[in-house]
Amino acid sequence: MDLALAEARSAAGRGEVPVGAVVLSASGVPLSTAGNEVEARRDPSAHAEMLAMRKATQITGSTRLDDCTLVVTLEPCPMCAAAAVHFRVKRVIFGAYDPKGGGVDHGPRVIDHPACLRHPEIIGGVRERENSLLLKDFFRQLRG
Amino acid sequence: MDLALAEARSAAGRGEVPVGAVVLSASGVPLSTAGNEVEARRDPSAHAEMLAMRKATQITGSTRLDDCTLVVTLEPCPMCAAAAVHFRVKRVIFGAYDPKGGGVDHGPRVIDHPACLRHPEIIGGVRERENSLLLKDFFRQLRG
Repeated sequence: MDLALAEARSAAGRGEVPVGAVVLSASGVPLSTAGNEVEARRDPSAHAEMLAMRKATQITGSTRLDDCTLVVTLEPCPMCAAAAVHFRVKRVIFGAYDPKGGGVDHGPRVIDHPACLRHPEIIGGVRERENSLLLKDFFRQLRG
Repeated sequence: MDLALAEARSAAGRGEVPVGAVVLSASGVPLSTAGNEVEARRDPSAHAEMLAMRKATQITGSTRLDDCTLVVTLEPCPMCAAAAVHFRVKRVIFGAYDPKGGGVDHGPRVIDHPACLRHPEIIGGVRERENSLLLKDFFRQLRG
């Protein structure tokens, strides 16, 4: 989560919503890290999780991240939660809960849904206070 | 839908699951087209809709596709349905229904969900028979 937090802080420095993500191999080695790049890429799908998972498959050369863990500072949105299923990650660990935009423990809860083909293990609320403070500070500063 | 179908057929020729997508401007002019590129890019998120919407924002230079229509040969999966909301498309028109993998009229129905921030208009089942035959033929050939 330290690596993901560093990516989130770096994203904030670039004026992006501060979310960071890391993909860990089966043995816990970081395969890829990414921060949110929605503004830089002018791409609303360039969430930290999507970028980190794409990077990881480029590195492994496989379209599957079977034994990997996705670590992200914020509860994934429905798009990223569904992407984690497509990428076949084994586990999703996230920091702050996102009651408005989250898609794992909130909203359509896409991974829990019976129609979901695979059900990665979910561990939410890790270092919740630290992770949610980073976002709150960012939006407070944005509002001036 | 003709353009989307052409992209789907072209994807099949490359050994990809035959799905094609087009983004239309407010006046109905095609801004971008894409076929499924999951295998070619080794990227499970490289669905036709994602690629077409990303291309469209690169072309318009805006992160929003406010008055645009996404046309796709197959019901979007939860990832792509949620992405269409992030990209702020006005309307989603799709061909074949996808009871197993769809996320619009099936599964978590992410756009219909009350937590969904925007609700693009949905028109499903357009040229349903033609669109679903293309997929059925592809999977029949795959099984040999």
